Amino acid sequence: MVRIAVAGASGYAGGELLRLLLAHPDVEIGALTAGGNAGTRLGEHQPHLAPLADRVLGESTAENLAGHDAVFLALPHGKSAELAAQLGDSLVVDCGADHRLTDPAAWDRWYGGEHAGHWPYGLPELPGARERLVGANRVAVPGCYPTGTSLALFPALAAGLIEPDVVITAVTGTSGAGRSLKPHLLGAEVMGSLSAYGVGGEHRHTPEIAQNLTAALGSPVSVSFTPVLAPLPRGILASCSARLTDAATDAATIRQVYEKTYAGEPFVRLLPEGQWPTTGQTLGSNLVALQVTVDPDAGRLVVVSAIDNLTKGTAGAAVQCMNLALGLPETTGLPTTGVAP
Amino acid sequence: MVRIAVAGASGYAGGELLRLLLAHPDVEIGALTAGGNAGTRLGEHQPHLAPLADRVLGESTAENLAGHDAVFLALPHGKSAELAAQLGDSLVVDCGADHRLTDPAAWDRWYGGEHAGHWPYGLPELPGARERLVGANRVAVPGCYPTGTSLALFPALAAGLIEPDVVITAVTGTSGAGRSLKPHLLGAEVMGSLSAYGVGGEHRHTPEIAQNLTAALGSPVSVSFTPVLAPLPRGILASCSARLTDAATDAATIRQVYEKTYAGEPFVRLLPEGQWPTTGQTLGSNLVALQVTVDPDAGRLVVVSAIDNLTKGTAGAAVQCMNLALGLPETTGLPTTGVAP
Amino acid sequence: MVRIAVAGASGYAGGELLRLLLAHPDVEIGALTAGGNAGTRLGEHQPHLAPLADRVLGESTAENLAGHDAVFLALPHGKSAELAAQLGDSLVVDCGADHRLTDPAAWDRWYGGEHAGHWPYGLPELPGARERLVGANRVAVPGCYPTGTSLALFPALAAGLIEPDVVITAVTGTSGAGRSLKPHLLGAEVMGSLSAYGVGGEHRHTPEIAQNLTAALGSPVSVSFTPVLAPLPRGILASCSARLTDAATDAATIRQVYEKTYAGEPFVRLLPEGQWPTTGQTLGSNLVALQVTVDPDAGRLVVVSAIDNLTKGTAGAAVQCMNLALGLPETTGLPTTGVAP
Amino acid sequence: MVRIAVAGASGYAGGELLRLLLAHPDVEIGALTAGGNAGTRLGEHQPHLAPLADRVLGESTAENLAGHDAVFLALPHGKSAELAAQLGDSLVVDCGADHRLTDPAAWDRWYGGEHAGHWPYGLPELPGARERLVGANRVAVPGCYPTGTSLALFPALAAGLIEPDVVITAVTGTSGAGRSLKPHLLGAEVMGSLSAYGVGGEHRHTPEIAQNLTAALGSPVSVSFTPVLAPLPRGILASCSARLTDAATDAATIRQVYEKTYAGEPFVRLLPEGQWPTTGQTLGSNLVALQVTVDPDAGRLVVVSAIDNLTKGTAGAAVQCMNLALGLPETTGLPTTGVAP
Repeated sequence: MVRIAVAGASGYAGGELLRLLLAHPDVEIGALTAGGNAGTRLGEHQPHLAPLADRVLGESTAENLAGHDAVFLALPHGKSAELAAQLGDSLVVDCGADHRLTDPAAWDRWYGGEHAGHWPYGLPELPGARERLVGANRVAVPGCYPTGTSLALFPALAAGLIEPDVVITAVTGTSGAGRSLKPHLLGAEVMGSLSAYGVGGEHRHTPEIAQNLTAALGSPVSVSFTPVLAPLPRGILASCSARLTDAATDAATIRQVYEKTYAGEPFVRLLPEGQWPTTGQTLGSNLVALQVTVDPDAGRLVVVSAIDNLTKGTAGAAVQCMNLALGLPETTGLPTTGVAP
Repeated sequence: MVRIAVAGASGYAGGELLRLLLAHPDVEIGALTAGGNAGTRLGEHQPHLAPLADRVLGESTAENLAGHDAVFLALPHGKSAELAAQLGDSLVVDCGADHRLTDPAAWDRWYGGEHAGHWPYGLPELPGARERLVGANRVAVPGCYPTGTSLALFPALAAGLIEPDVVITAVTGTSGAGRSLKPHLLGAEVMGSLSAYGVGGEHRHTPEIAQNLTAALGSPVSVSFTPVLAPLPRGILASCSARLTDAATDAATIRQVYEKTYAGEPFVRLLPEGQWPTTGQTLGSNLVALQVTVDPDAGRLVVVSAIDNLTKGTAGAAVQCMNLALGLPETTGLPTTGVAP
Repeated sequence: MVRIAVAGASGYAGGELLRLLLAHPDVEIGALTAGGNAGTRLGEHQPHLAPLADRVLGESTAENLAGHDAVFLALPHGKSAELAAQLGDSLVVDCGADHRLTDPAAWDRWYGGEHAGHWPYGLPELPGARERLVGANRVAVPGCYPTGTSLALFPALAAGLIEPDVVITAVTGTSGAGRSLKPHLLGAEVMGSLSAYGVGGEHRHTPEIAQNLTAALGSPVSVSFTPVLAPLPRGILASCSARLTDAATDAATIRQVYEKTYAGEPFVRLLPEGQWPTTGQTLGSNLVALQVTVDPDAGRLVVVSAIDNLTKGTAGAAVQCMNLALGLPETTGLPTTGVAP
Repeated sequence: MVRIAVAGASGYAGGELLRLLLAHPDVEIGALTAGGNAGTRLGEHQPHLAPLADRVLGESTAENLAGHDAVFLALPHGKSAELAAQLGDSLVVDCGADHRLTDPAAWDRWYGGEHAGHWPYGLPELPGARERLVGANRVAVPGCYPTGTSLALFPALAAGLIEPDVVITAVTGTSGAGRSLKPHLLGAEVMGSLSAYGVGGEHRHTPEIAQNLTAALGSPVSVSFTPVLAPLPRGILASCSARLTDAATDAATIRQVYEKTYAGEPFVRLLPEGQWPTTGQTLGSNLVALQVTVDPDAGRLVVVSAIDNLTKGTAGAAVQCMNLALGLPETTGLPTTGVAP
């Protein structure tokens, strides 16, 4: 049995981690900690986690988190490096942003301050990523937007089928913002309205998407990224496109590239032709649903991906990486069915 | 391994059955059948059931359904008796209404026509119900409203704490109406609106609630039931009340009755005092969340219950009954954590 | 022209007041004030009020509010008495709770502290209420729940058709809680969930409902009230019932009582038989939609009412009362069509 | 007074037309007709239009529609040309697609069959469009997507600031699909899910957007258009981008182009810098909310627009065009405030 701890257990990412870990056959749940909610019962914050309702949250200190085989950090950015340094050789899976970017200058521009260094990047489906995760003791879980968008676009980029100038609009549920008490996240404001934010390249996930796509191509990729907030709790639907290169002959060949790329991937599902992804089908599952097509008039490839931002977009990826890091079968404890309707 | 079949696999109840059965360790999924959707891929109707996406639906005939250890029927009412008669000794779990009511006159009044007879009633938490389900080969799964409301009220009735004159308003998500193509179920009509229906005792679940409560008390119970449609896919929140009798001394004693009644029940969760049920905490789980209080000014007991109408309200109950009927541990394959937020 | 001021212009009630007042042909909009948002542009908080976007909010002081023909107060309770005392003979319409209750003991029990005294109650459709509003210079706008529920029940009570022991479950959108930054009001928590609160008679609107019904009957009425929060921005659907008296002969006669009561009321709409109210049809309008029926098995009257909690439930009522107080036609500037779907 | 008729009064577009026309000071409502719903009361289909609830719908025949000053057609495509031919010199405002496209080949490709010819295009904010609408007796109301997206992009194209190769992802509420009884439009499927459709240039509004933008530029513009369905009744949020040309010097200059273009437009609102459009702020109003920025890393202009698809996107535009055609002030009867939250 793997004994785990979760720091940030009263938040949305922490709650989803615990939902998955409760169902994981090889996991025993150890310390649960929080920031401002330390000292309260988990059941006050996560009433859906009935089996853990009476657990009292500790403080998110290294002392409380030490002595576990794996520690999951679901903390605001800037908090994980110092904690991790005190956790020795335990596996540390960081759901925050601190160790995702490889370029200190990018960190400084987008998040500000000194970079804590990068860790193996927890998107096993990217080229070369899985190998770096096997046996790792530090993992940086990707951002929710980079997950679905990178997997939508890297196969075409790597195969030279599209120009390195991609345009992404991704629509998201509101849990991606966490349990932040901000007026624009109130139910009354969210329901019945759609809004864009971080437009013009200002969202912090932009450099992370660019980093993933640039790595896949081997040369710089320009990313135009617009996130849109929609009235649902969970889910990201990303509409991704780029101009086709001369190497892109026909739609069938392009589809084959995606089929081949994802043939062995347990969590990426290229839908049958003509069927388009919905976020509803991925709710609570670790799946990425994908569809790819060609717009002949516009000369563009269009790929649409759907994920659950809290599962494959955060906590599911974290558990998938824990499995890889600890030598467990990669798919253990991870649902491939969604909860619908 | 238990080999199962599902008739009505393209509907909401059928989909939820398959979601649960896919995760059940002792189940092997056999025939999947449908009415008008026979001949199509399951993935067209239930894209969230990725592992079964390529299964082609057969016709809902006895021939296709025969030869399984358990057959789940998720069909419009009036369809199950004839099918069941051809299925011999296999376990038949009927998610429809045909065999819930014990009184042929009630059947005729509420549904019309000749009654097909009643089967063991699939709400194991009711007094005496579990015993009748162990080893049964026919099970009538309760209606979604009767589940949460009967469990909210029977303990107080059985203990003589309330008058046999109960008032229930239950608010529900729209999946309870199934995949019916009716204008008032369109997303544009449902979102941003609340509506009552079947008011004044016209809803068909009224006699079923009355039957359960009357059985618990041992004499007739009057039920005023008002269902309300709300903009969410799943969930029933029931507000249930009745005038206190003289035997009802204080709130603490009443609470103890509920605590004692549900002490050993794996799927009924009486929340800590002061915490009120939400349907969100039960999403996708087989739990009933309950809270009970006394309104001293009005002299009434008020009980609120929350369930997922498709899980504990339909498919979860069906699987729970299958477990009992076949001698498996009652909780096998049934989630006690919800998917939230 | 009537020159008006609004205190609390950055909240939901203030925003709805301004939406209606902008369309009122006899109104000129004067000072707009706020608490913590003083000094900011209205457009930051109420982007839907485009014509007023560049107005800068002042402090909610008597100095800023003085010199207007009518001042609308949309403030937390406890704030209006002192302000009003400094506003002389101007009409003051208080959307808060301070002057609704007539009984100081009830005020102390439900809100705490010394009662500021009661003002003419702004529900003109109640017996005798309209007369007290004509020419008034102080008005207490009713709470949102008391509006739809009092109008649903008082005709039957006044006619002696029901026992003075009513049970109400009212389902509401989340704007009723105002722009409060509380976790349970976040979009991610609200969407996909239903929850009860203030159960057992703890909601502050309970004594206000009882006060209205007691006045209509002329002797005490017991009220059991359960509010339920649902995933929509606006709307209250109230399910109200009581046991029929011997005086209640048949459904048709009861219906006639309601028809007669509301025959001349411009904002109460008794729907045709068989059609049940939806909150969607009242969105943004000043209408109350009503339907009444008898449950013969349960021996109860059941009335369902639907309103928009921000319009007829708050700001629309306030404008209606302003019209009455200032001698304008009562319906001026008040929509009787909803925005649907 | 202008006497008007509405064909298709039981649908969503027809309902919104009537909501606006009821509030129009110069309009008298004449015949209301329908297809399958002829013979029924309007109140069954449009309960929010209380003042018209008892109107009985006639058949959508020329006979019933003749003799009005203006006839609004809200019919499936292919139905309007023949009707209009029998309506003589009355103003005919067609909310359908039949007369929007100027190119018969485009009509044949996207809709199929012979083209009925094009009418003055009802988007007065496009260059030259208003002049053609003044005094017109036939008007083709634009599609909902073309409205917000054309107004977002044409100023930059006309000023030579962006390449003629635009990428649009537009997220929409479900009322845009009308009251069609299709499974994917059911509330249970829509709520909690996002989905793309018509991807790869297959949506019929694509050629209409291209036509508008091509006209503004004077040479062909390539349009990549992806619509996304989201869980809300109304609203379109469009994210529109294109690569900047060398003529695009800085963000401030580009903003000035938009400011100048829309300076005199009563229904286009360029938001203050830093404030991004929400569809909620436009609910029920005839406004287009716009914001424009530059993504310096990606070298792209990004414009986001928000409209209510039923108001400015359909019925509001129709009334605006009626005003122009009949010589009334353009803004009469058209709200510039939204209903929020």
